[in-house]
Amino acid sequence: MPPFKPQDPDYIRRVSESFARQRIMQTIGATLTRVTPGEVEIALPFRDDLTQQHGFLHAGVVTTIVDSACGYAALSLMPPGAGVLTVEFKLNLLAPASGARMLARGRVVKPGRTITVCAGEVVAEDEGGTEKLVATMTATAITIHDRPAVND
Amino acid sequence: MPPFKPQDPDYIRRVSESFARQRIMQTIGATLTRVTPGEVEIALPFRDDLTQQHGFLHAGVVTTIVDSACGYAALSLMPPGAGVLTVEFKLNLLAPASGARMLARGRVVKPGRTITVCAGEVVAEDEGGTEKLVATMTATAITIHDRPAVND
Amino acid sequence: MPPFKPQDPDYIRRVSESFARQRIMQTIGATLTRVTPGEVEIALPFRDDLTQQHGFLHAGVVTTIVDSACGYAALSLMPPGAGVLTVEFKLNLLAPASGARMLARGRVVKPGRTITVCAGEVVAEDEGGTEKLVATMTATAITIHDRPAVND
Amino acid sequence: MPPFKPQDPDYIRRVSESFARQRIMQTIGATLTRVTPGEVEIALPFRDDLTQQHGFLHAGVVTTIVDSACGYAALSLMPPGAGVLTVEFKLNLLAPASGARMLARGRVVKPGRTITVCAGEVVAEDEGGTEKLVATMTATAITIHDRPAVND
Repeated sequence: MPPFKPQDPDYIRRVSESFARQRIMQTIGATLTRVTPGEVEIALPFRDDLTQQHGFLHAGVVTTIVDSACGYAALSLMPPGAGVLTVEFKLNLLAPASGARMLARGRVVKPGRTITVCAGEVVAEDEGGTEKLVATMTATAITIHDRPAVND
Repeated sequence: MPPFKPQDPDYIRRVSESFARQRIMQTIGATLTRVTPGEVEIALPFRDDLTQQHGFLHAGVVTTIVDSACGYAALSLMPPGAGVLTVEFKLNLLAPASGARMLARGRVVKPGRTITVCAGEVVAEDEGGTEKLVATMTATAITIHDRPAVND
Repeated sequence: MPPFKPQDPDYIRRVSESFARQRIMQTIGATLTRVTPGEVEIALPFRDDLTQQHGFLHAGVVTTIVDSACGYAALSLMPPGAGVLTVEFKLNLLAPASGARMLARGRVVKPGRTITVCAGEVVAEDEGGTEKLVATMTATAITIHDRPAVND
Repeated sequence: MPPFKPQDPDYIRRVSESFARQRIMQTIGATLTRVTPGEVEIALPFRDDLTQQHGFLHAGVVTTIVDSACGYAALSLMPPGAGVLTVEFKLNLLAPASGARMLARGRVVKPGRTITVCAGEVVAEDEGGTEKLVATMTATAITIHDRPAVND
């Protein structure tokens, strides 16, 4: 697939500023590690206070970072002034979310004026940098123009 | 649909103990508010530190409580000694997750020896107790017998 | 939930005419059996030439009728002149699609100006009229105004 | 990702014979065009009698070929004697299903003893062989051993 061309030359700042307003990211310790046209990566170091009953990161935490990675991948291709909202997503859990840190990568599969479809994945990185695929996501985002940020 | 009959008479204690081991629930302030055969409810008071860029609860937080509600609904019908793992889920976001507190409700649609399918919903309750539907989930869980809690 | 009020008083004719243009329905022998505001039912008698390797109806055939039932449930609430397009759906298969005929029922969960979310189910009816739940669907539809019927 | 090694040396014959028993494939005119370990392709020439109201192939027809492509990709890696059943799938529709023929490609993302997760895509090929991405699928399949082919 050819690389995407952003409609907003200032897309990196726009994504970064929006990410900085997601207070959940500071709460769980996630950071934005890469923004390119149509692709975004978010990193999350493992933390015991985010786990489920078996000591792995909860699927909702995995979802938090990969949903944002997909949403911001979509936003990176939207025109200036537009906002992004997730309509729906599906997550498949492939392996336990354990390791030194998680990397959530979202990329645009099909951009559109109204609907943008993204694919996401979460890999767990161990101390040596070896990656293991933990989860895959498909997400549908909608472009919002000049209206309240609700799914209406 | 007829009410489900639990295979484990001690299903409430089993669900409650597993929920207590999900450290993420304490981190975000969620509590288990109801466990019946095939149905589980989890409550989450709104908190500013769990929000996304528009000031609503992040979709990943909404997912956290409704994924657990679905998983524990499935576990409530499983035989003694069995464990539960989420294979996959889909979440549709219908309205902003704002309000005094969220209630996530999971219920079993189709129990099975290996695969259990659940439906979940999250409603936002305002101060007066009025509910608004925020999200719906379909989740697939698997029963784990005598083996490590991995999706293998 | 309160019953939905259609924006187009002629919604039954609109849905019926669109259904009549779906040539696949004649090919497989499916008929439109009920249209109410926000709810549509499609029936499909069992046919051996629509089966998979175990002699049950193929999941794609089940999908065909329940996707249309969901789409037309959405269309029944849309304003005159609007068109409907499926953005995405998820299907869970709960039991083999065998029996005398299948009934696919779609209903609107959340209507919207742009996005409408529907829930669908397919039941298999035996000769005596007893129903068995075969599959559940969640579908996202989009309203199309004055533009080609493409997902753009 | 490293190539998958089939557990059944006779996997091509097994997939081909099962495909031949899917009567729906003859009904719609679909053929099996490639089977490699963990990857399967099915082709479907465009036919007017399989269309929806806008003259494109119905989403259920698109689903039929890509669900089978994913299921057989999963089966290609399963041990001798095992059967495959689709548990659930999600389809995103990206462009109208029009063109000379559709090619559905399914590939295994994560094989497992019990659960196999697959990714599928459908491309429309025009007369000149140019491809356009029409739909993407994520599918979850289950391995069946020595029991009736039902989702139990």
